[in-house]
Amino acid sequence: MKIGVLGLGRMGGNIACRLMDSGHECVVYDTSAEAVRRITEAGGQGADSLAAMVEALPKPRTLWLMLPAGEVTENAIAELAPMLDAGDTLIDGGNANFKDDVRRARTLAERDIRYMDVGVSGGVWGRERGFCLMIGGEQDNAERLDPIFATLAPGTGDIESTPGRSETLDPRAEQGYLYCGPAGSGHFVKMVHNGIEYGMMAAYAEGFDILKNRTADFLPEDERFDLNLADIAEVWRRGSVISSWLLDLTSIALAEDQSLNEFTGEVSDSGEGRWTVNAAVEQAVPANVLSAALFARFRSRHTPSFGDKLQSAMRNQFGGHVETHND
Amino acid sequence: MKIGVLGLGRMGGNIACRLMDSGHECVVYDTSAEAVRRITEAGGQGADSLAAMVEALPKPRTLWLMLPAGEVTENAIAELAPMLDAGDTLIDGGNANFKDDVRRARTLAERDIRYMDVGVSGGVWGRERGFCLMIGGEQDNAERLDPIFATLAPGTGDIESTPGRSETLDPRAEQGYLYCGPAGSGHFVKMVHNGIEYGMMAAYAEGFDILKNRTADFLPEDERFDLNLADIAEVWRRGSVISSWLLDLTSIALAEDQSLNEFTGEVSDSGEGRWTVNAAVEQAVPANVLSAALFARFRSRHTPSFGDKLQSAMRNQFGGHVETHND
Amino acid sequence: MKIGVLGLGRMGGNIACRLMDSGHECVVYDTSAEAVRRITEAGGQGADSLAAMVEALPKPRTLWLMLPAGEVTENAIAELAPMLDAGDTLIDGGNANFKDDVRRARTLAERDIRYMDVGVSGGVWGRERGFCLMIGGEQDNAERLDPIFATLAPGTGDIESTPGRSETLDPRAEQGYLYCGPAGSGHFVKMVHNGIEYGMMAAYAEGFDILKNRTADFLPEDERFDLNLADIAEVWRRGSVISSWLLDLTSIALAEDQSLNEFTGEVSDSGEGRWTVNAAVEQAVPANVLSAALFARFRSRHTPSFGDKLQSAMRNQFGGHVETHND
Amino acid sequence: MKIGVLGLGRMGGNIACRLMDSGHECVVYDTSAEAVRRITEAGGQGADSLAAMVEALPKPRTLWLMLPAGEVTENAIAELAPMLDAGDTLIDGGNANFKDDVRRARTLAERDIRYMDVGVSGGVWGRERGFCLMIGGEQDNAERLDPIFATLAPGTGDIESTPGRSETLDPRAEQGYLYCGPAGSGHFVKMVHNGIEYGMMAAYAEGFDILKNRTADFLPEDERFDLNLADIAEVWRRGSVISSWLLDLTSIALAEDQSLNEFTGEVSDSGEGRWTVNAAVEQAVPANVLSAALFARFRSRHTPSFGDKLQSAMRNQFGGHVETHND
Repeated sequence: MKIGVLGLGRMGGNIACRLMDSGHECVVYDTSAEAVRRITEAGGQGADSLAAMVEALPKPRTLWLMLPAGEVTENAIAELAPMLDAGDTLIDGGNANFKDDVRRARTLAERDIRYMDVGVSGGVWGRERGFCLMIGGEQDNAERLDPIFATLAPGTGDIESTPGRSETLDPRAEQGYLYCGPAGSGHFVKMVHNGIEYGMMAAYAEGFDILKNRTADFLPEDERFDLNLADIAEVWRRGSVISSWLLDLTSIALAEDQSLNEFTGEVSDSGEGRWTVNAAVEQAVPANVLSAALFARFRSRHTPSFGDKLQSAMRNQFGGHVETHND
Repeated sequence: MKIGVLGLGRMGGNIACRLMDSGHECVVYDTSAEAVRRITEAGGQGADSLAAMVEALPKPRTLWLMLPAGEVTENAIAELAPMLDAGDTLIDGGNANFKDDVRRARTLAERDIRYMDVGVSGGVWGRERGFCLMIGGEQDNAERLDPIFATLAPGTGDIESTPGRSETLDPRAEQGYLYCGPAGSGHFVKMVHNGIEYGMMAAYAEGFDILKNRTADFLPEDERFDLNLADIAEVWRRGSVISSWLLDLTSIALAEDQSLNEFTGEVSDSGEGRWTVNAAVEQAVPANVLSAALFARFRSRHTPSFGDKLQSAMRNQFGGHVETHND
Repeated sequence: MKIGVLGLGRMGGNIACRLMDSGHECVVYDTSAEAVRRITEAGGQGADSLAAMVEALPKPRTLWLMLPAGEVTENAIAELAPMLDAGDTLIDGGNANFKDDVRRARTLAERDIRYMDVGVSGGVWGRERGFCLMIGGEQDNAERLDPIFATLAPGTGDIESTPGRSETLDPRAEQGYLYCGPAGSGHFVKMVHNGIEYGMMAAYAEGFDILKNRTADFLPEDERFDLNLADIAEVWRRGSVISSWLLDLTSIALAEDQSLNEFTGEVSDSGEGRWTVNAAVEQAVPANVLSAALFARFRSRHTPSFGDKLQSAMRNQFGGHVETHND
Repeated sequence: MKIGVLGLGRMGGNIACRLMDSGHECVVYDTSAEAVRRITEAGGQGADSLAAMVEALPKPRTLWLMLPAGEVTENAIAELAPMLDAGDTLIDGGNANFKDDVRRARTLAERDIRYMDVGVSGGVWGRERGFCLMIGGEQDNAERLDPIFATLAPGTGDIESTPGRSETLDPRAEQGYLYCGPAGSGHFVKMVHNGIEYGMMAAYAEGFDILKNRTADFLPEDERFDLNLADIAEVWRRGSVISSWLLDLTSIALAEDQSLNEFTGEVSDSGEGRWTVNAAVEQAVPANVLSAALFARFRSRHTPSFGDKLQSAMRNQFGGHVETHND
C-alpha cells in the first residue's frame, strides 16, 4: 500500500522504514528537512509540506501521524482535516489520550473522514523486533489496512503459541496486532499497557533496591549480603517466574555498570501512566500498585517534598524532635 | 504511692514531676547525675545507683522504667531483676515492641516478679495536658497501681463525654487511661496508635503538598491558586471534619513560617510505625495507608533511591530516554 | 442580609435556618414543596419557582445554591442565569469540581454575573456547631457577603487560639471561614479537605482493623489480645496524639455496638476524594495515602475483583495452586 | 553425584527426576511410601527412614531437603543433624526465611556440618524447563556441588545472551544458577524474587481489572469498550514492552475462559511476599508496590473488612450517610 507518514522522529522513522522494507510505499513529511532527507535516502518519497504529502497520496488516502501527543498532534489534525476528502483515513499512532480519540473520531466523521487510533509498543527496538499494535476505529477500515498492520507487527517469530486458543479468538493477536474496538479503544489498551509497564518497572525497582541495601551496617552482621545485582538479574532471566523483556533490559543495564552511578534517578513519566490512574478513578477500580508506581516517579523528582517538611514540622511541634537521618 | 522512676529524660522527668505534683513520692535514678539533680530539686528522692533506688523503695516495690526502647531497656531489666523480690513490679513505660513484653513477662514471672507494659502518649505536652495511658499486665496489679495511672492521665477535663457509653464499658477510659489486657497489650495498643499517627500525619502532609503545589506554571493559568496554608490549617480547626490535635500543631507550625524552609524534610521514624506494618503482615490485614505513611518517611531519607536509578536505566534501555525533570 | 437559598436538603435547610436564627432573611426554593414548607415554618419566605425566588430578592441579588454537584447544579445555573442581572451573585455551596467553578465564573462574567464557590464542611452537625467555609471568587464580593459567612461559620467558640498567628494572617480563619482566592479556590481547598478526610478515616480504619484481628488463632497464644475497641477509641480521645473529631465519632459508633455488625462495609465515595487524586496526578505530587484511602473504598464495593481472580488464575497456571483461605 | 532427596512432593519429585535424567544417583525418602515408590520406579533408590537414607549415602554426604518451610523443615533438620558427620552437607531447597538459614548455618557449623540454602524458582514447569537456582552457603561447597546445580538449572537454552556481560561476572548466571554469597543469601534473593513476582502479578491484575471494567454504564456511552482480554494478553506477548512469562500464563488462562468465573478470587500468599515487606521495613527501603501487592492478597480474603465497616460507621455518624453501592 501507499501511505503517508507524518512525523519522522525515532518512532515515525522506524515505522516508515519497516513498511518500506516490506515493499510498501511511503510519502513522508516532517518539519525537519533533515529528517525527511534521512527517510528519502532509505527509499521514501519526501514531501515538503502537509499539502504536498496529501497531494502525493492516492485516494482514499491513508496518513499515519507519529507526533508528540497533545498540542502538536491536535494542530496537525486541525491543519490536515480541511485538505482531506470523504473516505480518507487519519491514523494517530502517537500516545493520545483515548478521550481525545473519541472526540476526534466524532468530529471528523461529520466530514466522512475516518479516524483510527493505534497504540504502538516496542520502543527503539521496534524496527527490528516489530511493533505490537493495538488498533481502535471502524472494523472495516482496520481490515482494509490489514497489510500495513501485518507488516509493522512482529509476526509469530519464535515465540511459542499459547495452548488452548480457540477459533473464536482473533488470529491476528498471535501476529502481534489486534483490532480492539471502536475509536479510542486502541489507545485505551495501550494506555493500560503502559500503566502495567510502570507497575512492573516499579516492582523490579523496589526489589533491586532491597537487594542493594542489604549491606547496611545497622543490620545484624551475618544477615548482611553484598550481592551482585548484574548476576542476579541474569539468573532470573533463566527459568524464573519473573523473566520478562524488562528484566532482559535490566540485565543489560546492570551488566554495563551495576552501580548505575551515571543516573540521577529522576524518573520521567508520560501521559499514559497518569491516564491509567485517572481511568481507575473514573471506573472506581482499585489500582494501588499502578498509582504507587506513578507516584514513585513523581517522588523521584520532588525532593524533599513539602509534605516531608510538614511532617518534620509536626514532629518538631509535638515532640521537639529534631530531624535526624536514622536509617 | 511511692514509686521508683528510672530514666529522667524529657518523658521520665515529666512523669516523675506530674506524680509528685499530686502527692506521690518518687525515688529517681538516671545515669546522668545532672538529670537526677533536676528532679530532686523538684522534690524527688535521688538515688545514685540502681541498687540504691531499689533499696529506697518499700516492698512490694514498683519501678517505672522510662528508657530508650531496645538494648538500654533490656540491659536495665537484666540488671534490676536480680535485685528484686517476689511481688515487686517492673513497669516499662517506654516504646517496647509488644513481643518483648510478652517474653519479659514470661521470664520475670518465673521469679514472681510482676511486669507491666504501659504505652504513653502525649509527648512533651504531657506534664501539663496529662498522659494517655494504655496498660498491659495482670489486672489485679493494674488495679493496685490505679492511683499512679489516674494521676498521670489527663482526666476528663473539658473534653465532652461520648454519648451512649454503657456501664459495661470501662469508666477509666474517660479519664484517659485504660487497662487493655495481658502483658504486651498495652504496648500493642500504643503501637497501633502510633501507626495511625503516621497515617494521619501523612494524610495532612499529602493534602498540604497538593495545596502548596497549585501554582505550578504547567497548570492552566486560571486554575492556579496561591493559597495561604497557615490560614487554611487554621480554618480547618474550626468546624471542619478533619479538626484534630495534629492539625492544631500544624496550624502553629505554619503560623510561624508557612514556607517551612527551616526543615530539610528528612522524616525520622521510631519502631512503632514499623512494628505496626509488621503486625499487619503477621495478621494478614491490609494496611496500605499505614505502610505508605511509613515508606514516605523512609523515602524522605533515601534520595535518590537506587530503585529510581534502576527505572531510569531501564527507560534508557528501551527508549533511549534521557532523564529530564518534567514536572 | 436577604439571600435566596436554593436546595433545601439537609445541608441547605440547615444553612437557611442558621442564617435565620441570626436575623438574616431567606427566600427559599426547592423542587419539593414539602421541603419549602418546612423552612417557611421556621421563618423563611417560600418561593414556588426559581423565577419567584429571583423576583423576591433585592438587587444586587445573592443566591446560595445547595444542590447535588454535577448535572443538577449545572442545570439550575443554566436556568437561573438568564433571570439574573449584572451585579447579581450566584454562590455554589455544593461540592462542585473546582474546574467547573473556573469555567462557570468565566462564562457568567461575560454577563457581569458574579460567581462564588464555597466549600462547606460540618455535615449534619453544622447547624449547631457552625460550618467551616472555604470561599473562592472575587475578594470584594467576599467582603460584601461577610455577614453571611460570619453567621454560618462556627466562630471561635471554646477552641484555643493558635499561638503565634501574626497580623499578616487572616483573622477570619479563626472564626472558621476563609477567603481562599479566585473562583475555584474555595472548592479546591474543600476538595483537599475531603481528600485528607478519606486518608484519616482510612488510617483509623486500618488501625482498628489490626486491633480487631489480634485474636486470630494462627498467632502465638500469648500474643493474642481480645481488645475492647470502644474503650480504646475513648482513651485515645484523651491526651493522645491522635485525638480528633473523627475519633470522637468513632468512639460514639463503637460505644453503641463495637461489633459494627449492622454495617455491610461498602463504603461510598463522593467526587472530592477522586478529584483530589486527579489533582495530585495533574500536579505530579505523590499521594500514596490519599489514593490508597480512595481505592480502599472502591475495593470495599468490588468484591471479589476481577484482578483477584486473575491472580488466582496465574497462580493456578504456574504452580497448580488451588485457592485456599490461608489467613 | 549421589545425593539424598528428602521430600518428594511435586517440587522434590521433579528435582530428583531431573537429576536422575542426567545420570546422577538419588537416594530418596518421604513420609509417604507412595511418593517414594513413584520415584524408585523412575530409577531412584528408595529409603524407608531418614536413618536408612543417611546410611545409603557416601561420605561426605549431601542431602537435599525439599519440605514445607517452617516446622516441618526445622524438625527434619533437628532429626537429621545427629545422624550426620563432620563434612556432610544439608541443603534446604524449600522456601525458608533467610534468617532461619543464618541461624541454622551457625548452629550446624558447631558440629562441622555444612549448610546451604538454595532458592528454587520454576514451579511445576521446572522438570522440563529447568529450575532457576539462587545459592547461599560456603563458596567451596557450592563449587563442589556444581554438577548438581548445573544439572538442575535450565542452561542457556534459546534465551539470547545479554550483551556486554564482562568476564568479571559469573558465567553460571547465564546457565540459570548463581552462587549468591554466605548462608541465607540464596533464600534472600529468592525471597525478593517472589516479592517482585507479587508486584508484577498485581500490576497485571490491576491493568486487566481496568480493561474488564470499561463497560460500566455510568461511563459516557462512546467511552465504553467491550474488550477481548484473551486477545489483548496474547497481543502483548508479541513485541510489547510488558511481555513476560507471567503474561504467557495469563494468556493461557484467559484463552481457556476469559470470564475466569471458576475462580473465587481469594489469593493465597506464602511467606516470601511477607518477608520481603518485613525486609523492606527492616532496611528502611520504601516498597509501596510490593506491599500493595501483598495487601491486595490479604484483602481478597478479608471481605468485608472491619475497617470498611468502621468507615461506614464514621460516615453514618457525621453525615447520616447510608451505605450505598455507588460505583
